Amino acid sequence: MRNDLRSLIPSIKNKIYFNFGGQGPLPTPSLNKIIKSWQKLQEIGPFTNNVWPYIHNEVVLTKKFLAKSMGVNIKNIALTENISTGMVLPLWGIDFSEGDEILISDCEHPGIVAASREICKRLKLKLNIFPIQKIRHLNDEIIIDELKKYLKKNTKALIISHILWNFGYEIPLKEIKIELEKVNKNSYLIVDGAQSFGHVEICEQVRYSDLYAITSHKWACGPEGLGALYVSDRFIENTRPTIIGWKSLKKEQGIYEPYENLLHEDARKFEIATSCIPLLAGLRESLSLFENDISPNEKNKIISAMSNKLWFELNEFKSIDLVLQYPLRNGIVSFNINKNIDKNEFVKKLGLKNIWIRVIEDPKWFRVCIHQITNEKEIDLLINEIRLLI
Amino acid sequence: MRNDLRSLIPSIKNKIYFNFGGQGPLPTPSLNKIIKSWQKLQEIGPFTNNVWPYIHNEVVLTKKFLAKSMGVNIKNIALTENISTGMVLPLWGIDFSEGDEILISDCEHPGIVAASREICKRLKLKLNIFPIQKIRHLNDEIIIDELKKYLKKNTKALIISHILWNFGYEIPLKEIKIELEKVNKNSYLIVDGAQSFGHVEICEQVRYSDLYAITSHKWACGPEGLGALYVSDRFIENTRPTIIGWKSLKKEQGIYEPYENLLHEDARKFEIATSCIPLLAGLRESLSLFENDISPNEKNKIISAMSNKLWFELNEFKSIDLVLQYPLRNGIVSFNINKNIDKNEFVKKLGLKNIWIRVIEDPKWFRVCIHQITNEKEIDLLINEIRLLI
Repeated sequence: MRNDLRSLIPSIKNKIYFNFGGQGPLPTPSLNKIIKSWQKLQEIGPFTNNVWPYIHNEVVLTKKFLAKSMGVNIKNIALTENISTGMVLPLWGIDFSEGDEILISDCEHPGIVAASREICKRLKLKLNIFPIQKIRHLNDEIIIDELKKYLKKNTKALIISHILWNFGYEIPLKEIKIELEKVNKNSYLIVDGAQSFGHVEICEQVRYSDLYAITSHKWACGPEGLGALYVSDRFIENTRPTIIGWKSLKKEQGIYEPYENLLHEDARKFEIATSCIPLLAGLRESLSLFENDISPNEKNKIISAMSNKLWFELNEFKSIDLVLQYPLRNGIVSFNINKNIDKNEFVKKLGLKNIWIRVIEDPKWFRVCIHQITNEKEIDLLINEIRLLI
Repeated sequence: MRNDLRSLIPSIKNKIYFNFGGQGPLPTPSLNKIIKSWQKLQEIGPFTNNVWPYIHNEVVLTKKFLAKSMGVNIKNIALTENISTGMVLPLWGIDFSEGDEILISDCEHPGIVAASREICKRLKLKLNIFPIQKIRHLNDEIIIDELKKYLKKNTKALIISHILWNFGYEIPLKEIKIELEKVNKNSYLIVDGAQSFGHVEICEQVRYSDLYAITSHKWACGPEGLGALYVSDRFIENTRPTIIGWKSLKKEQGIYEPYENLLHEDARKFEIATSCIPLLAGLRESLSLFENDISPNEKNKIISAMSNKLWFELNEFKSIDLVLQYPLRNGIVSFNINKNIDKNEFVKKLGLKNIWIRVIEDPKWFRVCIHQITNEKEIDLLINEIRLLI
C-alpha cells in the first residue's frame, strides 16, 4: 500500500526526504486535479454565471473535508493563503484593551513572534514569553505547571503551537485551555497547527482552541498557497475582521446603502478576496491519498515506530544530543550535535547525497520529519551518512 | 497575430467573452508554465537547499516584469494574493492619528469600502466620501474641481481606483496627487489598479501613488490568487506592516535575540508568508503573450476603436443610456437600460447565448469589457442579442 503511494510522488523518487514539516511533496494525482480544476474553470468561466456554483461547490467540499479532519463545524472554517495570515489576521481583530497581555511560547515561528510584537507595540499591550525551551524532559505535567506561573488575569491571548516546530512535542490543548480559562474567561487560545495537520490526529483537540491555523503544503502534502483556520463561535462573535474583502461580506452593497451587519456571521468574515480555487482540488486529493493509504491509528504507529528507530540509532552517537526523551509520539526527531560543526554545512553535505533534513532556527538544531511514506531504508541511509560526517 | 493569441485561450473559444474586468481567461501556455514550475519545484524540492535559488529567481523575474510594467523600482514591489490584501494590509500600517480622515471615492469596490469603514471605526478616524457618481459628463477638470471641495488638512489617505470599475473612467493620478499634497504633505494616495493593469499603460502614472495594487487574474489574464503592490519609498519608511510573516523579515531570528530592525526595508515588509510560487511563471507568460501580440500603442487604439464601435451601436437604442460620453479611451463600456427589466435576468439570457457581460453592483448597471483579443464579430453578436432582448 505505502509503496503504491510513494510511486505517485515524484519528489521522493530522486531524494531521501525528511522535510515534511518544511514542505510536503505533492503527489502527481494532486497536481492533475489542480490542472483539471483550472481547465474546468476556463471551460465554464472564468467569469460567468456558470462558474459560481462550481466555485461554491469546490469551497464547500474542501471545508467539509477540513471540518471532518479538525472535528469541527464547517461554519467555523475559513480558507486562507497560509498559516501566518490565518493566525495574524484574526489576532488583530481581538477586542484588546490597553494593558492586556499576549502570552506566547518561546517555541513559535519567528513570523508569529514578530507579528505579536507589532500588535503589542501598536495596541499598547504587553508581550510575555512562556519559556518552554529551558524545560528539561518535557512532559504535559511540567508544561502545565510552568504555564500556570505565567498566566495572569490580563492574559488575553495565549499563542502556542499544537506540535512545537522545534521540539516536535505535542502540547495538551485541552489542559492548557482549562488553565487559561481559570485566569481569564475572556481570553483566547490561538494555536499554530503547522506541524500537526496531516501529521497526527487533531480532531479531538482543535475544539479546545479559539483559533487553529493549518496549511495544505506541509504534512498534508497539498499545494502551497492554501491554508485554513478554525475559529470558535465565541471568537467569531466577539472579534472583528481586519483585512476585509468581498469574501468577508454577505453582499456587495453600494456605498450609499446601509452597511450594518454586512459581514458574514461565520468564519468567512476572516476570508478576504480572490484566491486560487484550483488548489482546493489538489489539497482534497492529497488528503484522500494519504487517508486511503493507511488508517489514522496505523499511521501513528508506523510513524512513531520509525521515529523511535531513528531516535535509538542517533542515541548511539556520543556526539549527538536528542532533544526529546524516548519514546517519541510522532514523526519529528530533533537533535543537536555537540561538536564544533557548521550546521548549515552539515545539511548541505547530507544534501549532496540527496538526503534532506533541515536546521531549525530557534533553537539552532536539526530536525528530521518522518511521514507515513518514509521507509526504514531511508532512515538507514540517513544514519549511515551521519556516521560518515561526524 | 491576434487570431494566433485567441487560439491559445480555450475559454474564449466556446463563448463570447466580455468580462475581462471580472476575470481574464488563462491562455494554455500560461497554464503549462504553471505546471512546469510545479514539476520543477517537486524535482529539486520541495524543501531543499536547491529550491531556494529557483524560488528567488522566480520572484525576482516576476517583480522585474511588474516593475517594468508599472514604471517603478523592483524594491518597491511586493507580491500578494489579491488586490484587497494588497490595499488593506498596508493601509492598517499608516501612522494615523485620531481624527484623521480617509477620503474614498464612491466608485470603489465594496470590499475596500467595508475595510475603510472598519479602519475608521477602530482607529477613530473619519470616513468621507468623494462623490463621483453624481457628476454628469465626467472629465479630468470636473473631477479635480470636485475633489478640491473634499480635501482637507486632515485628509490622511485618499482611496481611488485608477480606472473606475463601474464607469470605466481613467482617473488622472498625477493631478490628484498634486491636489492631495497641497492640503497635506503627509497624506497618502492609495490606488486600486484592478481595472488598469494589463488593460491600459500605467507606467507613467503609478509613481504618483503611494500604494498601487494590481492583480494577475483580470486584464492581465494570469492565474487567480496572485497580485502585487507598488509602495512608494515614503510609504515604506513611514508605515508599519500588519500581517507579518517570514517573508516580511530579513532573518528568522530567535525569540531571545535582538529584534529591532528585523523587517525588510523595502516593499517586502508588506509580504506575509508561503504563497503559490508556480503562479508566477503563469503570470509572466500571460504578460509576455499579450505584450508580444501587439504594441502598447496599437493595443490602446484597437481596444478603443472597438469600445467606441460598441458605444455607437448601443447609442442607437432609445432605451439604453451610456454611462460615459463619446469617445471612450479604453475597453470598458458601461450602460444602463431605462426599462423595467431585471438586470440579472438580462445577463442570464445573454449567457444562454454564450455571451457574457456583467451587472456592476454599485451603481447597478451593465459593464462590457473589450480586450485586445476581442473581435468585431463578437461585438456584432452582442449587439444583435441585445436587440432581440430589449
